[in-house]
Amino acid sequence: MPLDPKIADRLKRDRDGLVPAVVQQHDTGEVLMLAWMDDEALHRTLTTGRATYWSRSRRAYWVKGETSGHAQWVRHVALDCDGDTILLKVEQVGAACHTGDRTCFDADVLSVP
Amino acid sequence: MPLDPKIADRLKRDRDGLVPAVVQQHDTGEVLMLAWMDDEALHRTLTTGRATYWSRSRRAYWVKGETSGHAQWVRHVALDCDGDTILLKVEQVGAACHTGDRTCFDADVLSVP
Repeated sequence: MPLDPKIADRLKRDRDGLVPAVVQQHDTGEVLMLAWMDDEALHRTLTTGRATYWSRSRRAYWVKGETSGHAQWVRHVALDCDGDTILLKVEQVGAACHTGDRTCFDADVLSVP
Repeated sequence: MPLDPKIADRLKRDRDGLVPAVVQQHDTGEVLMLAWMDDEALHRTLTTGRATYWSRSRRAYWVKGETSGHAQWVRHVALDCDGDTILLKVEQVGAACHTGDRTCFDADVLSVP
């Protein structure tokens, strides 16, 4: 079973067939990370309830937390107005970032005037 | 003045020289939209405090709200652990989405099991 064609028709993929997915903790609103999905990763995410991405560096599907235990249980998925970005609201187990930080945006804050 | 070289050295751009920017309302945590920045857009954002993007369709810089009035005043900017995503926390004036919705993710919710 591939991705529901009614959803696939609305997706606008980049030239590699990917769409960025913004991942947010469902209750606190923390933005945890950004990852990439193709149709199959979105299909697996929607049907399993477990966040699944396409790793651009490893060129492989990646079930978040499969090796680290830091899974993301999906509570809510939406496409944006253009169909070119996905928002996932998840229950994050442990740290979202591979560095051990809660989010991937904790370490490198830039100053604003 | 270009982007601070200490920041530019940490940025990992796609093959078009762009980095995705996740835009979040600073107090409620709502994810408002995703847009794209090159070095100059990030430089303008950091030095003016006003969210400025690169429009891939129009191939032009785009100061959010310049025509609509729906500006984004920047409160916080961070890079992610890989330097390939930017998180902006902003004070959004009015609707973030060009459709008039508060966020670009309000209209197209997908069901999760």
